[in-house]
Amino acid sequence: MPNRPIVTLTTDFGLNDHFVGTMKGVILGIVPDAQIIDICHSVQPFDILDGALTIAQAYSYYPERTIHMVIVDPGVGSARRPIIANTGVYSFIAPDNGVLSLVYAREERLSVRHITAEHYFLQPLSNTFHGRDVFAPSAGYRAKGVEHEKFGEEITDFVRFNAPKPKATDARTLRGVILKVDRFGNLVTNITPADVPWMFQAQPPAFKIVIGKQEITSVKMNYAEGTPGEVFAILGSMGYLEIAANRGAAVQITGAGKGSEVNVVLEGAVAAGNGS
Amino acid sequence: MPNRPIVTLTTDFGLNDHFVGTMKGVILGIVPDAQIIDICHSVQPFDILDGALTIAQAYSYYPERTIHMVIVDPGVGSARRPIIANTGVYSFIAPDNGVLSLVYAREERLSVRHITAEHYFLQPLSNTFHGRDVFAPSAGYRAKGVEHEKFGEEITDFVRFNAPKPKATDARTLRGVILKVDRFGNLVTNITPADVPWMFQAQPPAFKIVIGKQEITSVKMNYAEGTPGEVFAILGSMGYLEIAANRGAAVQITGAGKGSEVNVVLEGAVAAGNGS
Amino acid sequence: MPNRPIVTLTTDFGLNDHFVGTMKGVILGIVPDAQIIDICHSVQPFDILDGALTIAQAYSYYPERTIHMVIVDPGVGSARRPIIANTGVYSFIAPDNGVLSLVYAREERLSVRHITAEHYFLQPLSNTFHGRDVFAPSAGYRAKGVEHEKFGEEITDFVRFNAPKPKATDARTLRGVILKVDRFGNLVTNITPADVPWMFQAQPPAFKIVIGKQEITSVKMNYAEGTPGEVFAILGSMGYLEIAANRGAAVQITGAGKGSEVNVVLEGAVAAGNGS
Repeated sequence: MPNRPIVTLTTDFGLNDHFVGTMKGVILGIVPDAQIIDICHSVQPFDILDGALTIAQAYSYYPERTIHMVIVDPGVGSARRPIIANTGVYSFIAPDNGVLSLVYAREERLSVRHITAEHYFLQPLSNTFHGRDVFAPSAGYRAKGVEHEKFGEEITDFVRFNAPKPKATDARTLRGVILKVDRFGNLVTNITPADVPWMFQAQPPAFKIVIGKQEITSVKMNYAEGTPGEVFAILGSMGYLEIAANRGAAVQITGAGKGSEVNVVLEGAVAAGNGS
Repeated sequence: MPNRPIVTLTTDFGLNDHFVGTMKGVILGIVPDAQIIDICHSVQPFDILDGALTIAQAYSYYPERTIHMVIVDPGVGSARRPIIANTGVYSFIAPDNGVLSLVYAREERLSVRHITAEHYFLQPLSNTFHGRDVFAPSAGYRAKGVEHEKFGEEITDFVRFNAPKPKATDARTLRGVILKVDRFGNLVTNITPADVPWMFQAQPPAFKIVIGKQEITSVKMNYAEGTPGEVFAILGSMGYLEIAANRGAAVQITGAGKGSEVNVVLEGAVAAGNGS
Repeated sequence: MPNRPIVTLTTDFGLNDHFVGTMKGVILGIVPDAQIIDICHSVQPFDILDGALTIAQAYSYYPERTIHMVIVDPGVGSARRPIIANTGVYSFIAPDNGVLSLVYAREERLSVRHITAEHYFLQPLSNTFHGRDVFAPSAGYRAKGVEHEKFGEEITDFVRFNAPKPKATDARTLRGVILKVDRFGNLVTNITPADVPWMFQAQPPAFKIVIGKQEITSVKMNYAEGTPGEVFAILGSMGYLEIAANRGAAVQITGAGKGSEVNVVLEGAVAAGNGS
């Protein structure tokens, strides 16, 4: 257990304004020895799924008792509830809009509470910056040792959604979608190895992946296996199939992007055995 | 009081270079247990007012004894003075070019000193990176416990400016300016509720806000009240009137930007009472 | 010596994804009291020289025993080795692709080891994110006190390169290259004062620097000496000759950029004495 409480921040606030620096001040004002860690502030603005994907990729590597603040909050100031979730290992503080959905999907023990303890909030309470006025002080008091029960009543009707799943459009075709484009231009699909186990066999059958005008027919073990300009499939570190290029940006080569459709087609004859 | 001294950084250095990482090293080299907090490194290059707005929004949330370094320094290497300001609660370390003006405006107790204690500086002293050679070591030694008096003599002729204020252009019209555009495309004006108190009444009189080709006639309590594509006024978290859109970027819809003129016009008949 | 181990991060991972936040979690999961410092995550993607320049500018300011993680790793998942370098003062953890070359060039005592202690790695080991699975846990265990010897055998055939040096193309002309463009649009050349000592004399002889369509004939002591729009030479804080403008972006004015050629020409007559 750390001597100093760890509070992580995942937001769509960007780094061009005072927003993040102000929230850090609020937390440290309550618990000066907190260790504040930026996970990511470049979640796509208002994009709850992107926020959900980001925190889901990072949270479980942190030590026990870490407090994860996740703020993607297009409904700030409206009736949407602020919540604190307790997994037994971690605390999450977020708006109740589904941004924790992928955390909920992984955690068996889970208690979610509506934060109603307004005496923890900053006053006057703004309608536009609950990161500063509601979420940061809640994280601060949690870091100071305030128990989950003190923040409000448990709720069971919290908002959750399922990440989009790929669908079989015929016996040979699986249709997925690009969830995100990473820093290197890799296209992260929503297709997992469990959806296409044959692709990761030592000798995979013939297949093609159609994305934009590009047809991809090979899967690589690592980026450096690709020849320059070649676009290929790879199992990415997020656990999804990715479309990538060696030292190149697949996003540019394919012309595809976030939300683009991707079709994985198992070539017929091969699937049936070893025909022509 | 924190066990570890807190040093915050607000600069226009950006995050693409070694600048920020080098300054952090200098501070930690002097006081390895300092807690270094990034407030913002994306102040508009050379834009002293933008730096002043940024630190003014964040500093007062930090715990007592926090040391705030603020570096927007187009005059680096010239005769402009490095200063250390003491508010009794916080220390500020900055170039003497007005970047602390909005701090000065809020603080009653204030002592500003010209940093002349060159034995704290890194040698050889560059002419182009006083963040590394002058400001970071000064912050480091202050964090280590060196008293303000040790840095140099108090001065009273430090540079300060007033933020631009809105002006009445006739009995019905107030002319302001866009101070900044935030991450979400909200346009932050320099108009405060004290300038237009009638706008925040339960039943505000008819008005229009003219910005670019857009006329805005409604004020909302929170972003989510706006219909898609609608541009409206809102009281922002910085304490200024903002022009905003729900899940949209007002900056794009209006075509206005930083420095654009904004006119608030109180509609005549209504202002006079309840005529047609 | 710090009470808490310091781990710095220098990568080309950018700040738009979960990558950096995930690595921080891995380190803190091993040593929760580590102090994690971002040096820079905006190294140009796959650009090993840019990474080498960045860490070389920052590392030596940090306190003794700091652990520097440097990840620019186009060969991730291939046969390139992970290494840990020990200078006696600092530890460096990086892929063996030359990204530490400029550190090697400055350090006399140096021991480099191939990290083969796979029991420190995360399992299952991905082929695409060794920052998370190999480098972060290695940094974490080093921060926890694991000695260099435990990570693997010393090697002497580690990859290193020399930064590009300027060349004399004739008796009067030195040809260099732009290594990088900084936040402010300054063009950082690979030319040092030792290459052109005459330029930094009190009364330098006549010269011109040709870059793009621009001819530069003056050297300034600081940015503020330049008149608006003027492009001039200056000794930058990285120790290289820079092409700069006062409150302007030399990159825009000159049309030059990273990789552009720059020629320094010592004007003939003056070089010979004081003829016409």
